[in-house]
Amino acid sequence: MDTDSTRNTPLPKLLIASGEASFDLFYRTRFLTPDPVIYVETPTTRSLLLSDLEVDRGKKQATVDEVVPTRTFEERLKANGKRANLPAIAALFLKDRHFDRVLVPFDLASGYSRALESEGIEIVVSDGELYPQRALKNPEEIRWIRETQIGVEESLEIALELLRKAEIREGLIWVDGEYLTSERVKSVLKQEMLKRNLLGRHTIVAGGEQACDPHMEGTGPLPAHLPIVFDIFPSHEETRYYSDMTRTFFKGAVSPELKRNYQAVLDAQNKAIDLAGPGVDSKLLHEAVVAHFSSMGYSTGIRPDGRMEGFFHGTGHGVGLEIHEAPRVGRAGELLAPGHIITVEPGLYYPGVGGIRIEDMLAITDTGAQNLTTFPKTLKSAIID
Amino acid sequence: MDTDSTRNTPLPKLLIASGEASFDLFYRTRFLTPDPVIYVETPTTRSLLLSDLEVDRGKKQATVDEVVPTRTFEERLKANGKRANLPAIAALFLKDRHFDRVLVPFDLASGYSRALESEGIEIVVSDGELYPQRALKNPEEIRWIRETQIGVEESLEIALELLRKAEIREGLIWVDGEYLTSERVKSVLKQEMLKRNLLGRHTIVAGGEQACDPHMEGTGPLPAHLPIVFDIFPSHEETRYYSDMTRTFFKGAVSPELKRNYQAVLDAQNKAIDLAGPGVDSKLLHEAVVAHFSSMGYSTGIRPDGRMEGFFHGTGHGVGLEIHEAPRVGRAGELLAPGHIITVEPGLYYPGVGGIRIEDMLAITDTGAQNLTTFPKTLKSAIID
Repeated sequence: MDTDSTRNTPLPKLLIASGEASFDLFYRTRFLTPDPVIYVETPTTRSLLLSDLEVDRGKKQATVDEVVPTRTFEERLKANGKRANLPAIAALFLKDRHFDRVLVPFDLASGYSRALESEGIEIVVSDGELYPQRALKNPEEIRWIRETQIGVEESLEIALELLRKAEIREGLIWVDGEYLTSERVKSVLKQEMLKRNLLGRHTIVAGGEQACDPHMEGTGPLPAHLPIVFDIFPSHEETRYYSDMTRTFFKGAVSPELKRNYQAVLDAQNKAIDLAGPGVDSKLLHEAVVAHFSSMGYSTGIRPDGRMEGFFHGTGHGVGLEIHEAPRVGRAGELLAPGHIITVEPGLYYPGVGGIRIEDMLAITDTGAQNLTTFPKTLKSAIID
Repeated sequence: MDTDSTRNTPLPKLLIASGEASFDLFYRTRFLTPDPVIYVETPTTRSLLLSDLEVDRGKKQATVDEVVPTRTFEERLKANGKRANLPAIAALFLKDRHFDRVLVPFDLASGYSRALESEGIEIVVSDGELYPQRALKNPEEIRWIRETQIGVEESLEIALELLRKAEIREGLIWVDGEYLTSERVKSVLKQEMLKRNLLGRHTIVAGGEQACDPHMEGTGPLPAHLPIVFDIFPSHEETRYYSDMTRTFFKGAVSPELKRNYQAVLDAQNKAIDLAGPGVDSKLLHEAVVAHFSSMGYSTGIRPDGRMEGFFHGTGHGVGLEIHEAPRVGRAGELLAPGHIITVEPGLYYPGVGGIRIEDMLAITDTGAQNLTTFPKTLKSAIID
């Protein structure tokens, strides 16, 4: 813990950010503002400084010890001919409380750091997470994440009806008198999620070649017989907690090569899932995936045309207030601990053949891991006649 | 313009951020990633540095001169026993191109600034906007903002059907066999907006006392006879441009006092709108609003119970990729110029009486201002029988 060497107490933490932009600020205040606010935390007191516009709502909603109106600080600064901007207000507040050195998050705006320094406040930038405990979810947070995931699974079930009732025409998927597009499936998914208070901004429904690019969200008519990757990772509008799941589906008959690839991804994923538990280095999960693909003869690398093929991303990541947060599950691992929520999402991507990814979300427990994803993922369930 | 004094050319600009988090990065690349990427801009070359996972999509989508894979930089750093994190990669790229001094945005993470400095890169933090031209929208951007606004007006029209077909029971609004809540109206609004690709995260539908707090999103049964504030400011999922409109409605008969307050807000707004045009200091719009309220005898201040009353926020703000951006329209103004998109949104808030706000969005033109909001706002249109 960073401490003030002269007094040997932990340094006060300072955030200047909006609850929208700063997950740390939301984590400590559960208070959302569009514009930045000042938050100061000592071992005994958590203080939120708010403008007149926010102060009433802050007193009602923010999980802090005190809401301090910025108005008097603004008036004092102006009386001294100074600009009453956020770093000046923060510096004045800190000096009133006899702090001249603070710990700030890695992502505090450089402009604020410089301005605070010019006001005589010494800035210690946190090397890692300001609140590493954010990675370890309490039961309430786990419930919020599960609620998000339940809404995802309900919504996916409804969206798949489109694939189920469709027929195949000229290698494409035909339903309701038109070719089924990524856009339409995403629209249904997002509508269903919104009914459940879930915002799925970058929901992926990508078929064929598009699925070979893991971040392509998908556009245009969806192919029959080829993999269609559904990667669904909304956050809940109220709790703001994410969930993350990927499934790959096929409409119609599937080639032996694609069936083999699908099964390889599923087997690799299950091997990694079986390893997950407290005290385990998460890189072992990634290594298990890489080893499985290697043993099956799947190669990874850059093709002559410059495109990537094989398995070229990490195996997973933590999920919480951010869609990607600690712990990492990749070449560089971390020791897993109870409360960690991680994804396990191997994939195989071969341009000309198709991209496949399967992703579950696990909660690390005291004794092992609980799979929070209940949506079927067998090869049989992936093929929709 | 910040320049390198030794060579008298503009400093290269450096961004390290995700397109999700950095509006500047999205503005210059129109490329979205969940994770941070490196962007370097000189007067001749705009370079986006991407990991293997993003490089294919970047080449297709990003509006830059070159997509540079980070892989070779990572390999060189690792070969030298160094950590291949983003600031190290950025520093190596800059040194390769003989830059040792860069201009960064105000909000570059302090952790990145410090790391770049320790790699020998001198950091100049931009005092204001890195791209002040972002405030001046080109015709394409204005079209995007108008498209967002059109979807808002269509959605509001549909949501108001709930109020129109409702009846009044015990001072509340009764429809479809239950009391109409803020949540239900917001749900209809958000669903309709989503059909139009609009994400209205913090849509406000707040009635009665709740409407007295300008940022309260609203919860529970809506009151009849009292003002219900609808503040709707979604962004478009593809263009990411916002629009912003507020309307206040009443269900059923309205007291003379509330009618007077509504008309005062509307008159104040129209006075401010009439002043808008190129070369005008936007603070004049705010002053017109304040003067009108004052002339009508409306007082602003803190009540004995600590709550704010009257008109205690700015008159408006710029709208674009951010819901609040330049120019300001408040006590501190800026000179308006063609291409500015601003809101004009006075309000009167009296706990015990009700809160009223009316907001339009204007595009400043060569000769005046165009009101992009076409939704009715007369007192007559605000009262729903």
